[in-house]
Amino acid sequence: MTMINAFDPSAGANLSAADRTLIERRERVLGPAYRLFYAHPAHFVRGEGVWLYDDQGNPYLDVYNNVASVGHCRPEVVEAIARQASVLNTHTRYLHDGIVDFAEDFLKEFPSGLRHLMLTCTGSEANDLALRIARHYTGGTGVIVTKLAYHGVTGDLAELSPSLGSGNKIAPHVRLVDAPDQYRGTGDVAASFAASVAQAIADMKQHNIKPAALLVDTIFSSDGVFADPAGFLKPAVDEIRRAGGIFIADEVQPGFGRTGVEMWGFQRHDILPDIVTVGKPMGNGHPVAGIIVSPTVVDSFGKTSRYFNTFGGNPVSCAAAHAVLKVIKGQKLQENALTTGQYLADGLKRLATKYPLIGDVRGSGLFIGVELISDSRTKQPATAETTRLVNGLRERRVLISATGPHANVLKIRPPLVFSQENAAMFLSILDETLATI
Amino acid sequence: MTMINAFDPSAGANLSAADRTLIERRERVLGPAYRLFYAHPAHFVRGEGVWLYDDQGNPYLDVYNNVASVGHCRPEVVEAIARQASVLNTHTRYLHDGIVDFAEDFLKEFPSGLRHLMLTCTGSEANDLALRIARHYTGGTGVIVTKLAYHGVTGDLAELSPSLGSGNKIAPHVRLVDAPDQYRGTGDVAASFAASVAQAIADMKQHNIKPAALLVDTIFSSDGVFADPAGFLKPAVDEIRRAGGIFIADEVQPGFGRTGVEMWGFQRHDILPDIVTVGKPMGNGHPVAGIIVSPTVVDSFGKTSRYFNTFGGNPVSCAAAHAVLKVIKGQKLQENALTTGQYLADGLKRLATKYPLIGDVRGSGLFIGVELISDSRTKQPATAETTRLVNGLRERRVLISATGPHANVLKIRPPLVFSQENAAMFLSILDETLATI
Repeated sequence: MTMINAFDPSAGANLSAADRTLIERRERVLGPAYRLFYAHPAHFVRGEGVWLYDDQGNPYLDVYNNVASVGHCRPEVVEAIARQASVLNTHTRYLHDGIVDFAEDFLKEFPSGLRHLMLTCTGSEANDLALRIARHYTGGTGVIVTKLAYHGVTGDLAELSPSLGSGNKIAPHVRLVDAPDQYRGTGDVAASFAASVAQAIADMKQHNIKPAALLVDTIFSSDGVFADPAGFLKPAVDEIRRAGGIFIADEVQPGFGRTGVEMWGFQRHDILPDIVTVGKPMGNGHPVAGIIVSPTVVDSFGKTSRYFNTFGGNPVSCAAAHAVLKVIKGQKLQENALTTGQYLADGLKRLATKYPLIGDVRGSGLFIGVELISDSRTKQPATAETTRLVNGLRERRVLISATGPHANVLKIRPPLVFSQENAAMFLSILDETLATI
Repeated sequence: MTMINAFDPSAGANLSAADRTLIERRERVLGPAYRLFYAHPAHFVRGEGVWLYDDQGNPYLDVYNNVASVGHCRPEVVEAIARQASVLNTHTRYLHDGIVDFAEDFLKEFPSGLRHLMLTCTGSEANDLALRIARHYTGGTGVIVTKLAYHGVTGDLAELSPSLGSGNKIAPHVRLVDAPDQYRGTGDVAASFAASVAQAIADMKQHNIKPAALLVDTIFSSDGVFADPAGFLKPAVDEIRRAGGIFIADEVQPGFGRTGVEMWGFQRHDILPDIVTVGKPMGNGHPVAGIIVSPTVVDSFGKTSRYFNTFGGNPVSCAAAHAVLKVIKGQKLQENALTTGQYLADGLKRLATKYPLIGDVRGSGLFIGVELISDSRTKQPATAETTRLVNGLRERRVLISATGPHANVLKIRPPLVFSQENAAMFLSILDETLATI
């Protein structure tokens, strides 16, 4: 599989001379591993709130970027970064109030069993550290993930991230299970997901692999966005624990209030993870991420292996993360994700009655997947139409992308400050674009 | 091995009530894996140039922190971060001039064979990515590192970083070789280091392990700081290439002009690495790092596996890195590392004639190791004295640390803006402290 929504330089897009030159220079210095979005790449020079502005000054409605969760260039966050960077930026081997103040406030957002915060710079580092701790604690190596999982780019994570494409090898100690897909699956999602996990555990045993963890993105973003029915994760979590493994909730995408009803995606499922990993929106773009872990699970690792990350938990990163947390709480952005998300989902469901192309609208809060199909009886994935729609929206200056094994699920994941007015505008332009597909 | 220069909470240090409370709060929220420096931890609230200020307003001379390479809170870097954070911070899947402008300027600092830059957020991510590419390119898994190497904290790096301590397992495909220690070794360092690498390769073959890379910190910081004789790495690099592996130069510590004579540590050895990794000082504390790689080595990886790091290469990180590079070049900090480093080394050598405790003074530019011994004939490591000296300096408000397998090598690694006056002050306080040991 090539990357969803990737720019293809050989397709001869209608680029401006300036952009053509910039793309050539970019390829020359960054090499062959980088990809751009869209048939016609977007070139941004400024951001504010839910808007990105291109080099011609045109505004784009951002319905995609979950990182800029409290809005692009949010003044409170920019000020916190600028202030702390001008005062002190060192590391966690000296005492500093900032990390302790932040950690105390942040841990209040978690169930009391999750008592320790360890800070990294990226979600990849967070998932990688979670895995190291899981393996240390359980003595196992086996990891269960979903079929199109993405958990990061380190060596240990790439080998369990099938969404990185066919050139990326999955390791022998990794087992892939079907995503909990209520739309295409049959029967009880909770039961069938747990059965898949149990089967993966049995297969590991047969190959002398001791299970370490079940690791899932609690909204299954790369698999196609699956949130319902609430609670479906619980039996699978019970299975991995019965087998001696732990449960790691990857909240890098669903976390920080995005799902609306709760602060974290796992809370939807009435479960207590052994480790939670967080990232992307945590610093509104500043590189800060981390894990929240139960004392029992991290005890031996912490005592025998210690942990230090040069930039992780530095005063500036903590100031950025603290500012983001305060804005999310103070501005009630979780509540906004719930109400605006509901308004948006309702509008999408209305469009589904108008366009048979829309097969399913799902998700939670401001994390919505819209599955496009070309035949309502066979649910034939409308992959080509999805690409046209995503690019059609981009030409109308609205940013989203697509996801799922057939690249036919619209990924709708705007900044949390997205308003009802923004949602109405998006629905109107989506309607207009759907009419052309 | 426990961590060198770690705070021991059970030792009952004479802490202020405020610091005691802060340490208790810190342990409660950060858990058991974090360590503080010094018998009496330092609590900093402000930094400027080569100075850190504690919560009582006392200035400390920073002779240790290589991250704040252009000086703590360097205004040009703070301004670049603040400005870009207020304008735009997105990711590399949209076009942006900042990353291309930076990469073009930065790549000029490398030999022409190293043509591509890939950006990460930390040195760990850089080394991890280098390893993924090495394994993809060579088809091998085996890695050769030195006996007390440190290359990062991801799972794949921890398992080849023996300096993380005895609780950290080294993987079966990793081979450890003696560091190129001219002080304690006998004979030709270049020949014996190459012979160790050849032996490691032979041992891998015997165990059906295909070599992927020789990975070294080109100044061997955690092994005890080894820079001389210039050129000693070359025969070892030839060995790994003959065996089908590649050479990765970890420049996270020696890089960015610190060694004085050249911009990068590998240049001292007349070699062209296949991959260079950079980090720590790159953003003066802002989390930015990366790899510089030859097109041949990254070609297949880039085409089949693609690379994306949510925060890596974002506009703010690029602005920070660009500002640091401009300061290093514009202020001739490499030249300063050479001249101030020479002044400092001369002073240390003078102290060595006064104190038999000093067995060796070595290094390059502003990266100096001073090995302490209790017997000049047997070279018995003066481990306890080193601890007392490092802590004695801390009580006199001078920051350094220690390194090496016996924790008896002073690690002297100040910001690159360290002046001759700063060096004279350090030498004077060191003299005073040595007199008490």
